[in-house]
Amino acid sequence: MLTLNEALKKIRPLDEEAMEYTRHRWNTLGKPLHSLGRLETMVTQFAGIYGDKQPRIGKKAVIVMAADNGVVAEGVTQTGQEVTKIVTENMTKHNATICIMSGMSGADVYPVDIGIATDSDNPGVIRRKVRYGTANMLKGPAMSREEAIKAIEIGIDMVRELKDKGYNLFATGEMGIGNTTTSSAICSVLLDQPVEKMTGKGAGLTSQGLQHKIDVIKESIRINEVDPEDPIDVLAKVGGLDIAGMAGCCIGAAVYQVPLFVDGFISSVAGLVAMRITPECAPYIFPSHCSNEPASMMVLEGMGKQPYIMAGMCLGEGTGAVIGFTIADYAFKAYWELPSFEDTKFGTYEELD
Amino acid sequence: MLTLNEALKKIRPLDEEAMEYTRHRWNTLGKPLHSLGRLETMVTQFAGIYGDKQPRIGKKAVIVMAADNGVVAEGVTQTGQEVTKIVTENMTKHNATICIMSGMSGADVYPVDIGIATDSDNPGVIRRKVRYGTANMLKGPAMSREEAIKAIEIGIDMVRELKDKGYNLFATGEMGIGNTTTSSAICSVLLDQPVEKMTGKGAGLTSQGLQHKIDVIKESIRINEVDPEDPIDVLAKVGGLDIAGMAGCCIGAAVYQVPLFVDGFISSVAGLVAMRITPECAPYIFPSHCSNEPASMMVLEGMGKQPYIMAGMCLGEGTGAVIGFTIADYAFKAYWELPSFEDTKFGTYEELD
Repeated sequence: MLTLNEALKKIRPLDEEAMEYTRHRWNTLGKPLHSLGRLETMVTQFAGIYGDKQPRIGKKAVIVMAADNGVVAEGVTQTGQEVTKIVTENMTKHNATICIMSGMSGADVYPVDIGIATDSDNPGVIRRKVRYGTANMLKGPAMSREEAIKAIEIGIDMVRELKDKGYNLFATGEMGIGNTTTSSAICSVLLDQPVEKMTGKGAGLTSQGLQHKIDVIKESIRINEVDPEDPIDVLAKVGGLDIAGMAGCCIGAAVYQVPLFVDGFISSVAGLVAMRITPECAPYIFPSHCSNEPASMMVLEGMGKQPYIMAGMCLGEGTGAVIGFTIADYAFKAYWELPSFEDTKFGTYEELD
Repeated sequence: MLTLNEALKKIRPLDEEAMEYTRHRWNTLGKPLHSLGRLETMVTQFAGIYGDKQPRIGKKAVIVMAADNGVVAEGVTQTGQEVTKIVTENMTKHNATICIMSGMSGADVYPVDIGIATDSDNPGVIRRKVRYGTANMLKGPAMSREEAIKAIEIGIDMVRELKDKGYNLFATGEMGIGNTTTSSAICSVLLDQPVEKMTGKGAGLTSQGLQHKIDVIKESIRINEVDPEDPIDVLAKVGGLDIAGMAGCCIGAAVYQVPLFVDGFISSVAGLVAMRITPECAPYIFPSHCSNEPASMMVLEGMGKQPYIMAGMCLGEGTGAVIGFTIADYAFKAYWELPSFEDTKFGTYEELD
């Protein structure tokens, strides 16, 4: 398994030749130039990522990082942390929302226990536990720097492992009660925005509960003396193992040259962390939807990404990311099946100004 | 075939009981309340439209209204108007972009000649011609009020005909060289916005060409003395037969109680016209994507709709609307296949404040 430092050295820029070839081929297809917009640029970018002039989508995997968060002790969530394990196990039994949505996008779901508070005896849950849940960030760092790095390395290695199994398109998802709290803390620090603006009701809080959540986040950031210039410091002190694992997946996508769709708010925060660790991973990361969490669009903007889907979803697990897979399927279907100008029997369009 | 006035009298509000039942059922499914956002409200709205507590998506149809626009004589487009017929015929041979995209969404494509400038001998093109292209709106009305109404009635009747064939989910698309010009003219008047703001380069113009297009639209609006309070007057004088036909489809969706996705800019303008003719059709009309044409979002806002897809597409033909079909498929798959709270073995979520 690569260390984070070894992995970072392996990241390469996209293959310009493959991209140029793909751009050119789009312009030979029978339609106004660039009229499929970001479907066109998506295929071109995939070609650059794969380093392949004939890019094709193969098997698709959703890596769901599951972990518990010590901060739930502060009453920042509606449900208890036992739900993390229950839902993660449900994912192995086609009994969770992500399984239903993935079924439609033709993707396989891989739930990873990267830090659930108790052990699961379910063999479908991939055991990569760094620790039994994080500590309560209101009392000190959620985890050590070493643990955060280990979780990132696990994420990187999950991409390798699944790429070896033939997957070439990835998404991240998560399951972890309390992880909108950690996500709001991270993005508030990394984007230098007030906690109030970056915090929502998650899976369900009263307005009073929301105010309490904001107070807990503010105080956690303060007492931990997080360094906004050091994304791993932020991740370790006020983040979570699920977010660290997903950040690792984003870096892994760049290391192993596969495109990866982030899901909504929490998963995008992990994408932002990855891009702060290494901006070189940016072109490998694709947005999917903008979640209903208030900070979701700001996080995407912070990543320099625009969502493809706006549906007010906020379920997590990767449920929006797999719709991104379908957008990619449309793009590739158009790229490979559209008639050429010759077939369509009308003159070509020209690039003007 | 119903007259427009007869049709308007048949529109009924959505079935509140079916909607209430569906809303309630969503809240029994094992996920945080409302966390599938607009996927949830979409299914609920479909239930209200169908008047069915057990709503299901059946066969899907894209009605592509094809017509020519006399204003192309003013040089407002990159290609000639012969392209309208060629592409419309290509749609019958699986040789157009909409066929490729529809293939993925499981929809059938019905190209309708509602006003192509020449006749097609292709039997796959449904002949409903009102006239051989419109007149040049810079010289006078594009068509008579009676012709505009006839085109609307044809659109209404196409929905009836296809509903009789077993379709219960619809989209509109169009093919008509010059129809971003007519669309910009219509929405500029109906939304009371400057022509400059509502006009883009369509399928390809130089910056100089864009300025000319703006001048032509402005002058056409002026000389025709359009009445912004009378949507049919606007449609007849500075619109097109394709837009009139699609507006008819939107009204037809309400008359025959089926949901309909509008495509991008041009198709949304038709939706706006329909809603101005009868606001009662609004809940039957669904947005799909926001096109790359500059006015697309403003038109959707004018309809009170938010797009589901943001992909910078601007190809027309219904190519974005069919991605809307897929969003609906995801929504229905979740609605019918999600485990209940009982199955998931974790406590229910509660509605707080």
